[in-house]
Amino acid sequence: MVRRVFEATLELLGAQGYERLSVPEVAERAGLNKTSVYRRWPTKGDLVREALEASMAPQGPLPDTGELRGDLLEFARSAVGFVESPLGEGVLRTLLAGGPSPEVRAFAASVFRQQEGAGPRQVFARAVARGELPASADVTLVLKTLAGALMHRLLIEQARCTDAYLERLIDLVLLGITSRRGR
Amino acid sequence: MVRRVFEATLELLGAQGYERLSVPEVAERAGLNKTSVYRRWPTKGDLVREALEASMAPQGPLPDTGELRGDLLEFARSAVGFVESPLGEGVLRTLLAGGPSPEVRAFAASVFRQQEGAGPRQVFARAVARGELPASADVTLVLKTLAGALMHRLLIEQARCTDAYLERLIDLVLLGITSRRGR
Repeated sequence: MVRRVFEATLELLGAQGYERLSVPEVAERAGLNKTSVYRRWPTKGDLVREALEASMAPQGPLPDTGELRGDLLEFARSAVGFVESPLGEGVLRTLLAGGPSPEVRAFAASVFRQQEGAGPRQVFARAVARGELPASADVTLVLKTLAGALMHRLLIEQARCTDAYLERLIDLVLLGITSRRGR
Repeated sequence: MVRRVFEATLELLGAQGYERLSVPEVAERAGLNKTSVYRRWPTKGDLVREALEASMAPQGPLPDTGELRGDLLEFARSAVGFVESPLGEGVLRTLLAGGPSPEVRAFAASVFRQQEGAGPRQVFARAVARGELPASADVTLVLKTLAGALMHRLLIEQARCTDAYLERLIDLVLLGITSRRGR
């Protein structure tokens, strides 16, 4: 039952955005009485937050390509896969259009937990262990900057995040623009 | 007359967003007959695009601090000043919430022309002349990545773009995370 409700929630969220989503509509789509849904999730905010958290649960460890650059490329591809999906785009537009209500802040927090979750952190920990990265590297800043660049590419430029683009972006955060290596 | 119309347009855009903006309301606020406004700007899209372009015209050259890092910090501060203003936030939320209609794409193009305009390009040209940067450096990628990071900081994290944050961000795009210098 939980799974069906989450699926219905995410389908409607992707199609309509948060403002227009209604709990009775979710219940109908999931083939349940709305009372059953409200019993478990007292507010729309509770329901959407839990559905998002469940959908964004880590998919297992990111592959170990043997070097930070390759690992980050895998991470960026998986982030793009989510953000370019109808659901991912709906979630992002909802977040951005919603303004600073407590419910929207709760979504943002849940998006963050995923962005800075076990998968990407593990990628950086491996790089420190290999000696590719100083232990003091500001991993949070890198993850947020990558996320911002992907948002800008998708929503403002309305351009595809091709592998060629992702490689240039990752080289930028790895080496910096002042580097003469590799680009 | 043009100036009054642009001011009214931008005030209403910042307060209401693009979807709810109407040309008759702009005319009323500017103290004009709506026919006069329609004569010069046949559509809402034309009006808003021109008002945005006028508001984002370069404010003269960015100060020359003698090094790329300082120049980029000045550039980032001025970008943050715009994006954190009620108008700038309204414009950005409108762009992001609006979906890919032709009118919204026209706005995006106008935001871009500014982002990649004379001011920031000049900052990079000075850095190449000083020998701080290879002439092949991907300036467009840097500007878009900085813009994305600022958007993420302001709209998703809902955090202030302090000078301490801007310095860390600029060091990231200048030196890369693998650098052991300076951070």
